[in-house]
Order: sequence, then C-alpha cells, then structure tokens
Amino acid sequence: MNTSEVQEIKNIAIVGLGLLGASLGMSFRGKNINRMGWTRRLDVCSWAVDNNVIDESGELEDILSRADLTILCLPIPRIMDFIRSYKTCWRPGSIVTDIGSVKEVIVKCGEEELHPLGVHFVGSHPMAGTEKTGPHAAFEQLYDNAEVFITQTDQVNKSAFEAVVNFWESIRTKVVQISLKEHDILVAHTSHISHVLALSLTEAVLDCPESERKLRFSGCATGFRDTSRITSSPPQMWREIIENNQPAVLEVVKEFEKRWSHLCELIENKNYDQLQAEFSKGKKLRDGWIDYKNHEHGCNW
Amino acid sequence: MNTSEVQEIKNIAIVGLGLLGASLGMSFRGKNINRMGWTRRLDVCSWAVDNNVIDESGELEDILSRADLTILCLPIPRIMDFIRSYKTCWRPGSIVTDIGSVKEVIVKCGEEELHPLGVHFVGSHPMAGTEKTGPHAAFEQLYDNAEVFITQTDQVNKSAFEAVVNFWESIRTKVVQISLKEHDILVAHTSHISHVLALSLTEAVLDCPESERKLRFSGCATGFRDTSRITSSPPQMWREIIENNQPAVLEVVKEFEKRWSHLCELIENKNYDQLQAEFSKGKKLRDGWIDYKNHEHGCNW
Repeated sequence: MNTSEVQEIKNIAIVGLGLLGASLGMSFRGKNINRMGWTRRLDVCSWAVDNNVIDESGELEDILSRADLTILCLPIPRIMDFIRSYKTCWRPGSIVTDIGSVKEVIVKCGEEELHPLGVHFVGSHPMAGTEKTGPHAAFEQLYDNAEVFITQTDQVNKSAFEAVVNFWESIRTKVVQISLKEHDILVAHTSHISHVLALSLTEAVLDCPESERKLRFSGCATGFRDTSRITSSPPQMWREIIENNQPAVLEVVKEFEKRWSHLCELIENKNYDQLQAEFSKGKKLRDGWIDYKNHEHGCNW
Repeated sequence: MNTSEVQEIKNIAIVGLGLLGASLGMSFRGKNINRMGWTRRLDVCSWAVDNNVIDESGELEDILSRADLTILCLPIPRIMDFIRSYKTCWRPGSIVTDIGSVKEVIVKCGEEELHPLGVHFVGSHPMAGTEKTGPHAAFEQLYDNAEVFITQTDQVNKSAFEAVVNFWESIRTKVVQISLKEHDILVAHTSHISHVLALSLTEAVLDCPESERKLRFSGCATGFRDTSRITSSPPQMWREIIENNQPAVLEVVKEFEKRWSHLCELIENKNYDQLQAEFSKGKKLRDGWIDYKNHEHGCNW
C-alpha cells in the first residue's frame, strides 16, 4: 500500500453526534476538510448540517466508504459493536479511530477486525468532556488545549498513526503517544477513580432521610458543587468505562485508600501538624499541575 | 437594655481584610452603612480604602468602640484570640459576629467572654469562599446567593440575632438558623470531608515518582481539575477547621467509608448493573440539588 494514500485526509466521517462527536465537527469549522456525519437519529443529522456541525450526512455505508478517516464517537461497547458490524464498509487504506476512554479492549478489537481487511485502526482518547451529554451540549471549544492520547502498538501502521496525530493536532490539541496498558492505568488514576469518589461523596452528603434533605442542600456550596460535579455524568457511560477497565480501577482504589487511611489516622490521632504538612503537599502538587496547564498548555484555569 | 439600640446598624467594623473580609466590604458598596475596616497590614488598609472596599480605617480600639456590628473575618483561632484580647473595646449593646467555618468552639468563647460585658455575640457562617486567599482574591459577588448559617443558642440576644439576620439578608444571602451542634455536623458533611477527599485524590494521582509526573499531568483534565480544586485551599486554614471539628469529621469519615466500600465491592464483584444504579442515584441526587440552587436560590450553576 502506498503510504501517501493513507495520509491525505480530505473526507472525515464522524459517527455519533453526541457531546464529543458534535463538538469535534464544530472544531473543524472553516478548515479545508469535508465533514461527513452520521448518527441514528435523523433529526440530529439535520440539526448538525443546519448548524454547521458537519457538512453532510447521508447513508452510513456511503459515508464510511468515502471517508479517509472515520472517528467513532460512541460509547465503548458500541464502538466495538460498530467495528464488527460495519467493517466491510471501509476502503482498504482508510483509517478508523475512536474517542473511547479505555483503550486496550477497543484497540484490540479494532486491530483484530480491521487489519486483516487492510483498514488501519489507531486508538485515540481525547481528554475532553463535561458532565453533560448529547448534541445540544456540544461546543466548538471543547477540545481546545485538551490532551489526546494516541496508542502505540506492535501492529499500528506508522503512516496511519501519523495521520491521526496530524488530525488531532490540527485542532490545537496536545498529542501524547502511549501504550495500551500504560494508558488504561493512567486514566484509572487521573479520571476513573474520581468518578467513584465523587459518587461516594454525593451519597454520603445527599442520600439522607427526607427530613434532613433541605438542610443538607443548604450546607452544600461551591466546594461541594465542584468536588461532586462529575457525579452528574451519564451513569451508563461510567458503568461501561469502569467495566472495561476494572483491574486498573481496583489498583488505584488501593492507592487512594492508602492515602485516605493515612490522613484519617492523622485526624484520629490529632496529629494536626502532620495533617497541615499533607495539606501543604497537596496544594503544592495541584498548584504545580495548574501552572503546568496554564503556562505550557495555554489553558486559562 | 433598649432593644432598638442594638438593632440599628449604621457603623460596621470588618476585622480582617482577606478574601472574606474584603469581599464583605465590597458587597456593601453603595449601601447606607459606614464600613470601617481593620487588618494588621497598613498597606492593605490603604488599598481597601482606595478601592472602595471600606470607607475608613484607623486605630483598632477606636473602630471597635464605634461599631454597632463587628464582623470578625479571621481564621478560627484568631477569632477567639481577638475576642479575648479586645473584649473591653466594644460598647455594651453592640454586636459581634464572625465568619468562622465551625461554630461551637467560637460561639462558646464569644458568649463566655462578651455576654458578661453586655456585648452581644451571635455566630455566623457564610457558605462562601474560593480556594484562593488574601484581599486581592476578593470580589463583590462572593456572597451572592450564599447560604449563611446563624446560630441559635440559649444565651443569644433576640434583638441582636435579628440584627445579624438583617445584616446578611441585606446583601442577598439566604439565612438559615441552626443550633451549634447541628451546624458543625452539617458542615463536616457538606464541606469538611470534601477537603480530606480532594487531598487524598490529589496525592494518589500526583504524588508519584518524578519520572511519571509529566504523564500524570497529561492525564489530568477538567474532571480532576474540579474534583481536586479545593486542594489548593490554604493548608493552615483547613488544618484549623478540622482541628476544631474533629469528632464531627470522624463521624462523616465513617459515613463516607460505608458508601465507598460498597461501591468498591460492586466493582470487585463485577456487579455492574448495581454500580450503574448507584451512578444513577448519585446523578439524581446531585442534579436535584443543582436544580434547587438554580431555581430556589437564583444561582446560575
């Protein structure tokens, strides 16, 4: 196969026009690329064309066959189902990627199903999203300065990999190359565990007798609002993410519990000097991270 | 004592011009009240007058003697030290309140020291703040729609209590009357525990070998930013809050651990249907609270 074939991305197909898919279409506004889009709901396809989210919609098989690059913006199990169901629609040499929050199960499926057909699968995971869902939650800036993990494997096609890197970089994201296992344990730390934490906190605070509910509501302010924000994320999505990354999540559960128990012991033993030292350490770590994002990545946090 | 004496608030003294004190001064801009202010740093006093944060500064003893209402915007231990050191400066019949995040230790001190002198102490706790500190982090809208807890005790002077309620309501906060014990256990739930959680999370994610630090930094996005935000709060302040509310915090630690363990067991046992049901419950609880804040309290979250 000629490598120049796979690198030229003129037509993209965005499959799934929820928060991530529709925002992706928006972020390519005004760029020299033909944005085809598809989702099951026809009214959403029309809305997307009418609002310059995509340039065209149409028959799924036709769109896939014309796409140089297809981005599967679907929930994790549906990404894998889609690959299995539609794998014969893609042209050999074309590239398929995704936006799923776990990579090992998805990339293994993609490579297994598509590589024998000459279609290149490259896994992507943009660290972008909000607690909201659906096309109407989409916005053009969602991916601005976001990190995008692109997975390296033994089987990955070098030229397709480069094309996917260029694709994400063209909308001002920061690409990080990573192995499948490294990715999945990383995001268990930096993202997945937070959802279990935020949920536990929300339940501990708000799941109380009805008679106390209103007082609890009064006692919750901006601190609780932010610490618990991601509890408002779609429940099924988070079930699927944890289901597909269970061993890594359990590993981080242990890491969290070690830190938590230590802090609780300090409180129990009234060792407040050491507790303050831990608060100082945490502040320094987080402030350092915020500085990094603001100064090296152009965020404005 | 004539009750009308204590209710007319024409002169207020704001002691401490950090985030909470300076924002309080700003929120009374354009109202018919004389804002006196004091803090140890003279340059901050000048800055506050120059920037319409307060109307005047000056000698502390003079300010306290002229104040109808003094608001102590200081860290918890310094509120109590201040009351003990300056108790003879206030006029009998004048009112002293505070903004401390715990109420039992402070209100007991205030009543014990001031009531024998005919000065009325009423405890307040506005649920307002950010992770930032100092006068330059202050802003006029900090208290907008915030809940303010005002503590009811056997000893509280009814007329002074009403004056403090009116004071807070005049800047569009929502006043909730509460007992000391009820307050301290409530905020352990809705606020204090979150700080221990956010710290544990930050340590579990960012306190890693230097060689992994940059990758961890990359993996943290807006979810982590918000869940961990309050880790950037002042360490000494949070040490002091937990130190002065230890039994209540430990009680909520147990409540949190019950929820957390249950969720971890579901993950360990691959009981994903039940995990999803918990995510749904949490989302419903939090969305309900957000709706309440937005629709009943005029927040725009």
